[in-house]
Amino acid sequence: SKEDFNLAAIYVSDAQYNRNVYFDTLPQAVRLYMLYNHWALKVLLYFFMLVNLSLAIFEDPAVYPLPIWATMLVEILCLLIFTIRLIHYAKVILRDKFWKDPKNICIIVILTLTLVDMIIYGALKAANYYGVRWSRVLRPLLLVNVTEGRQLRRAFRSIRNALPQIFYVFLLFMFSILIFSLMALKLLGKRGLTNINGTPYFTSYLEIMFDLYVLVTTANSPDVMMPAYNANFFFAVFFIVYILINTYIFMSVFLAVVYNSYKKYLKEEVRQLVRAKRHKMVRAFGVLQEQREEGGEPVVTQASWNQLVRLVQPNLSNAHRELLWSVSDDKNQGAIGKVAFVQLADLLNIEIITIKSRPHPLQSLCPSLYQSAPSKLLCQLVQHRAFVMVYDLIILVNAVFIGLDEENPMIANSEWVFLALYILEILLKLYVFEPRVFFSKHSFWNCLSTSQIISTRFDTIIVISALIATIINSVMKSSSHFSSRQILDIVFILRVLRLIRVVDSIKRFRIIINTLIRIGPAILTFGQLIIVVYYIFAMVGMELFKGKVTFYEQSSTDPAKAYCGNPLLNGTDFAKLNYCKNNFNNVVSSFILLVELTVVNQWHDILYSGFATVTHISARIFFVLFHIIVVIVILNIFVAFVLEAFFVEY
Amino acid sequence: SKEDFNLAAIYVSDAQYNRNVYFDTLPQAVRLYMLYNHWALKVLLYFFMLVNLSLAIFEDPAVYPLPIWATMLVEILCLLIFTIRLIHYAKVILRDKFWKDPKNICIIVILTLTLVDMIIYGALKAANYYGVRWSRVLRPLLLVNVTEGRQLRRAFRSIRNALPQIFYVFLLFMFSILIFSLMALKLLGKRGLTNINGTPYFTSYLEIMFDLYVLVTTANSPDVMMPAYNANFFFAVFFIVYILINTYIFMSVFLAVVYNSYKKYLKEEVRQLVRAKRHKMVRAFGVLQEQREEGGEPVVTQASWNQLVRLVQPNLSNAHRELLWSVSDDKNQGAIGKVAFVQLADLLNIEIITIKSRPHPLQSLCPSLYQSAPSKLLCQLVQHRAFVMVYDLIILVNAVFIGLDEENPMIANSEWVFLALYILEILLKLYVFEPRVFFSKHSFWNCLSTSQIISTRFDTIIVISALIATIINSVMKSSSHFSSRQILDIVFILRVLRLIRVVDSIKRFRIIINTLIRIGPAILTFGQLIIVVYYIFAMVGMELFKGKVTFYEQSSTDPAKAYCGNPLLNGTDFAKLNYCKNNFNNVVSSFILLVELTVVNQWHDILYSGFATVTHISARIFFVLFHIIVVIVILNIFVAFVLEAFFVEY
Ligand code: NA
Repeated sequence: SKEDFNLAAIYVSDAQYNRNVYFDTLPQAVRLYMLYNHWALKVLLYFFMLVNLSLAIFEDPAVYPLPIWATMLVEILCLLIFTIRLIHYAKVILRDKFWKDPKNICIIVILTLTLVDMIIYGALKAANYYGVRWSRVLRPLLLVNVTEGRQLRRAFRSIRNALPQIFYVFLLFMFSILIFSLMALKLLGKRGLTNINGTPYFTSYLEIMFDLYVLVTTANSPDVMMPAYNANFFFAVFFIVYILINTYIFMSVFLAVVYNSYKKYLKEEVRQLVRAKRHKMVRAFGVLQEQREEGGEPVVTQASWNQLVRLVQPNLSNAHRELLWSVSDDKNQGAIGKVAFVQLADLLNIEIITIKSRPHPLQSLCPSLYQSAPSKLLCQLVQHRAFVMVYDLIILVNAVFIGLDEENPMIANSEWVFLALYILEILLKLYVFEPRVFFSKHSFWNCLSTSQIISTRFDTIIVISALIATIINSVMKSSSHFSSRQILDIVFILRVLRLIRVVDSIKRFRIIINTLIRIGPAILTFGQLIIVVYYIFAMVGMELFKGKVTFYEQSSTDPAKAYCGNPLLNGTDFAKLNYCKNNFNNVVSSFILLVELTVVNQWHDILYSGFATVTHISARIFFVLFHIIVVIVILNIFVAFVLEAFFVEY
Repeated sequence: SKEDFNLAAIYVSDAQYNRNVYFDTLPQAVRLYMLYNHWALKVLLYFFMLVNLSLAIFEDPAVYPLPIWATMLVEILCLLIFTIRLIHYAKVILRDKFWKDPKNICIIVILTLTLVDMIIYGALKAANYYGVRWSRVLRPLLLVNVTEGRQLRRAFRSIRNALPQIFYVFLLFMFSILIFSLMALKLLGKRGLTNINGTPYFTSYLEIMFDLYVLVTTANSPDVMMPAYNANFFFAVFFIVYILINTYIFMSVFLAVVYNSYKKYLKEEVRQLVRAKRHKMVRAFGVLQEQREEGGEPVVTQASWNQLVRLVQPNLSNAHRELLWSVSDDKNQGAIGKVAFVQLADLLNIEIITIKSRPHPLQSLCPSLYQSAPSKLLCQLVQHRAFVMVYDLIILVNAVFIGLDEENPMIANSEWVFLALYILEILLKLYVFEPRVFFSKHSFWNCLSTSQIISTRFDTIIVISALIATIINSVMKSSSHFSSRQILDIVFILRVLRLIRVVDSIKRFRIIINTLIRIGPAILTFGQLIIVVYYIFAMVGMELFKGKVTFYEQSSTDPAKAYCGNPLLNGTDFAKLNYCKNNFNNVVSSFILLVELTVVNQWHDILYSGFATVTHISARIFFVLFHIIVVIVILNIFVAFVLEAFFVEY
């Protein structure tokens, strides 16, 4: 029946996309589940997720302030959408499964807490009291707990798995810092040395520990060593041994431990995924199976199989479907058993490149012209390797011209020549190659590498965008003698991006870039993970540090500009280095500050002479915690991931 | 004959220690080769190698200046020793093998060039001309080219093998920097922004490229971004994308590429070593083989085998040798064939731990006392886990006491209590465990881990040294009311080192530390490698930058102190940060400066506002080259090595 096919199709589709949902098999629930998986609903969910996260831009402390009622209204709308989505999910899966799944409980708790927080905050604000929107730290957790956040949950699980191992190395690492700090206190504390600003050097145990922790990140090297080194050559040995052990050996051990547990976990995950996939395919088979002869093996007939595949992937061409069937039914029996059927999910995931030698449309339009000797010669020329090399040379010349001063009219006009050359290239290729092949998913070159496919489309888009932007810019310039800075910026960026394609001509580079492109999707998962962690730290950081530091525009003449509007900062490195814009005054600058802390350099200046000065010395805890979580744990997982990807691909 | 046994013994010994020398098999050459492998000659060679390298301390620019004739005399002595060693080697191996081996040619070239340089330099100095001792950069190359430098050569080979791969990634990386620089120039160069010191921001292409290269090392983050970020939020995005691609992705790719080629190379090396070992053992077998029956397989008899093993390893106990034979001759035939014989080299390398339950000497001296109930109770107590825990607690209390102020007499005297407690522990253990076991290679604990073996001996040495140092210190204090700063330092260091043993009580820590100890020897090879590279850079750096920057003692009142004795440095970061002692004025400070450059932080301040200011902008080339060679190549090999070691051991 149609319902059976629907059920089987949903099993196959779940197997294909590694979904692991224990949905109800009643026909109505199956239909609901198909709706639940519709791409439009997913896009809608992620759109409102983004809106919900973006509210931080408009809430106090805001980049663009909006009244509280406006942001609250939008937030309630978001909560409503999330609730509807959750109810939809509850209708799809079995009741006991729903309540046993921690991620559903998490969503309910987050939504409830957010609502409670909004009511309290609204009431406090209405009564003109001070309120904290503490539930904002929960927002990114929704990203992790929605059904679609599978990859993200996997990334968090792989971190959780590495934690016990990391913990022991971390303890040993802290012990090493403690021992070295004790030694530094005893060796250097009583020598009456002073820092560069005249304060006593290495006299407090806690200060030493913190300074040595910062030294592990190399951020205060060699400054932390200089007073001791100036006093005596031999103290440098102490610091060199410290760096060798703690920066080089311990940090490598962290990476080794993270990488090791990551690899183990990955293997286990893959094994589970394969098992779950098989399980679903067996269920799909169970729905569609029939017995052709008494006592024989159950099979799925070609007719059922065709109907199923049409349901699962409606846009699959007939030829492609027939090919898949002939692979499954290799003995040509008109039906397949369980073993062959189970492979379907993987078969559907294989991309089949069909290169059809379709004739060029010009050939059918005016064959005599297209087949003439000069036309054929042109085709040969364009397909020749020298054609690519000539264009590589043009790109290099273009690079030099971009580097020169664009105020010079000769240089400015040369841009039109280069644009014309690039357009000519596209036209020539369109003449030689079949346009549908040119713009299709697959490249027209002989070597069908991912990077080339992407680069061809990328090239065309860049060149055409550059053309449009340059024309707009010239029109504006000639009509009003005024050229928009934004458009000019875009023109420049596009012009420089055009140069990237030269990389594609060198095979070795293509291998590296292919690998990078293939790990792209997984880097996006890491991007989500980082955003979750950053968002939480940004929310906490904004509550702790907002308004403590003020940025004054370049043009401002306020004397407070010299100390970022906070007299406590007078004369600190933070003010001297002009770091006033590194603050927690809104969510955007918080994020940029957190990136700077991830990069680690100068973080002690930001935190110590900056935020610890304007608040309290314990503010360091916030920054050290951030360092441990983001740099020691997450960045190492990221490196482990890139390493593993390269070993597999390269 | 005796000569045959000598020859076979040398083959086995070569196989055992992975020596790969094609020595002459004439009896006289074999005897010379045995002498050549004598440990005393190797120690002598390395001693003179060290002397030769240390000459840099006494040569201009010197830490402790010596007259030219003195250093030259020592150098000639060193050259003589190296020449004798080389002649010895030439006598040992076949003539054509000698001249075909590039490392011998290298040594001859180095020695000749050094002699030529010394003569030229001596003549120039005698005539009061300016001379450069350029051959000093060749000195560390001797370390690589002597026969004993096998491990070091292997390390260099593994670097050479990784180079082609690194090269392509490096090109792509440089291309990425070029593109980003071009974009930065176009986006930021015309905006009239200024750096913190008022100079124009991002207007010169070369400056931008250099600044962005430094940003990859994170050393100028976030300063390089601040002017643009202060002008507009969105420019931060440019820098974040740059850091993501170049610092995170490219640096991970470098590690991946280095690690990948390191692993491949390691496998190939191991395969070759095994092949060479087998080949040598087959030759040894060929020398000693005899045929017991007509047409039978050739064998080696037990008598020959015994004589051979006695020659190869004279200090092997009879029991151990018999055990090895019974393993080889498992069918008990009194002779072994080729297959069994070939294993000998590996068998000899296996350490066999023989734990003999020898009675405690006190038991034989006064059995009644040692066997009495209180004595037995004491033994039980000491062997109990609680004993270890009590001492861990004592160590922790000790740690707190060390942290407190030692001027306080109560605290100062508590040191005696702790020393007494530690001595008591050693005495108790000596009472309970057999002393030879206690001090032997193997620990007395049940769990015979490497770290415990080392820690037991380490403990005992530290505690006894601390006792001696504390006594000397007290004697000096009471006799002259003056305590030597050096001895006090040693006392403090020993006191803190005593605390390390607490780590040993936690099993998880022991695993990590065992791994670290096991990779120790290989880290020494890396140490040599780093010294070779540092030495070359130090020699070149000293010629380029010596005397350009002067360090003034803390007590100096010279106004030139504020700008390190070079007016060009007036107002630069280098002078402001008090980096005057970071200079190339002698080999020790050069080495410390190179360590600082390896750590990377602030290196742009050292090189740019320091050495480029006092010399020429092209001085950057020296520093960037150092960064590429040491940080991108060698440090990554080091990390790859630690990772691999951890995956194997952990
Ligand atoms: Na740094």
